[in-house]
Amino acid sequence: MAGPQSVTREVSGNKAISNIVIVIAMQTEAQPVVNKFHLIQDPHSPFPQGVPWLRYHGKYKDLNINLIWPGKDPNSGVDSVGTISSALVTYAAIQALKPDLIINAGTAGGFKDRGATVGDVFIISDCAFHDRRIPIPVFDLYGVGSRKAFETPNLVKELNLKVGKLSTGDSLDMTQQDESSITANDATVKDMEGAAVAYVADLLKVPAIFVKAVTDIIDGDKPTAEEFLQNLASVTTALDVAVEQVIHFINGKSVSQL
Amino acid sequence: MAGPQSVTREVSGNKAISNIVIVIAMQTEAQPVVNKFHLIQDPHSPFPQGVPWLRYHGKYKDLNINLIWPGKDPNSGVDSVGTISSALVTYAAIQALKPDLIINAGTAGGFKDRGATVGDVFIISDCAFHDRRIPIPVFDLYGVGSRKAFETPNLVKELNLKVGKLSTGDSLDMTQQDESSITANDATVKDMEGAAVAYVADLLKVPAIFVKAVTDIIDGDKPTAEEFLQNLASVTTALDVAVEQVIHFINGKSVSQL
Repeated sequence: MAGPQSVTREVSGNKAISNIVIVIAMQTEAQPVVNKFHLIQDPHSPFPQGVPWLRYHGKYKDLNINLIWPGKDPNSGVDSVGTISSALVTYAAIQALKPDLIINAGTAGGFKDRGATVGDVFIISDCAFHDRRIPIPVFDLYGVGSRKAFETPNLVKELNLKVGKLSTGDSLDMTQQDESSITANDATVKDMEGAAVAYVADLLKVPAIFVKAVTDIIDGDKPTAEEFLQNLASVTTALDVAVEQVIHFINGKSVSQL
Repeated sequence: MAGPQSVTREVSGNKAISNIVIVIAMQTEAQPVVNKFHLIQDPHSPFPQGVPWLRYHGKYKDLNINLIWPGKDPNSGVDSVGTISSALVTYAAIQALKPDLIINAGTAGGFKDRGATVGDVFIISDCAFHDRRIPIPVFDLYGVGSRKAFETPNLVKELNLKVGKLSTGDSLDMTQQDESSITANDATVKDMEGAAVAYVADLLKVPAIFVKAVTDIIDGDKPTAEEFLQNLASVTTALDVAVEQVIHFINGKSVSQL
């Protein structure tokens, strides 16, 4: 009976993707995707009592979509942005939901000198950290934590999206030291979550892809916080369109076909 | 039958502590505590496959001791230091082991101008981050993430330990911006894990205390990395003695008696 069984027991790389987890840090970024796919907030949270993390779920054709938003920080009331909460929700969502694929979607800053303009959507080839400087041999490499995203050559070609490297840090602003590290990371876009999601996905061996839309030009002449807030709503529309296209593309395919 | 039941069902604050989780980031820091309490590595890890996190456990009088060490990073082979892995192990250990109390122990840098010398052991009164700058109203407070540690006035008095505020960041070095934030946090000691452990413990409402031993003087004349490596072994002995004293003190007491 080895023959028929080996046909059924396909390796996960060749099996059609059925269960995806989308990690999105901000409500403004998450809401359009929730609306578009008519996702419903899970009344029975898969997460422990006390955490503000929310799961929205629904079906799109053959896909179970789980959108995880880390929610509002209980102490301050703002979105739980940054590496720690995105690492925690990625970990908890993988444990609870066993996804075939993780998509981390969100807004990011972009460098115009490396080809980014406001409204661009990038698929990320590599993630690294720029604010974990540990100047001891090997610890320095651990700090930077450079990782390849799951490669999606067909998706990039079909959707005609830009490809670039991402650098992640817990600050919205950028110091001189951050800038040097971002340059060393050869990053075109800068966010506050990606490399943390990549770290956890790598630990638990779940393929992860990153869809990042540019809200502000870091090497431009406008203050980051101001430009970020000004463009957030319009750029999330571009992000939303891209996430929709990515989900359409994923449906019916295996991870090795992406 | 309400009478007898109400005696048995004491609130957790008045119940003797029976189960503790000690989070220690580095093997050099963890090993003396493992040896002292004859802790045994758990052959059936409570953590998922793939993660390098290790649990050592054992009994000391009335206490179940769980020492959690995030282990060696699978990619680089060095200790998994920093906020992300300490947040993840704290979360996973709370889920798996339901501790009554968390103790985060480790080495730290100290500021001599605020009263720290090499070999000092501090009990932490407050934790905050110094490398999460988000200059948008309220997000700025979320980034700093200042939290009170669980108060232990009796422990501090009996063990005659120094008390100070802790500032946490993912770098061993310190930029000008880090220094300004650390000053704003009024911190005497600086580490790479504490505020992340405090964040998760606060989310899940588990009391957390912090025992930090000073390996290097940040506002001194020696390079941090060099001084850190030079003093690491000797200072972990001081840390080890303090952790042992803390565990002795905790035994038989409720959290409200600490």
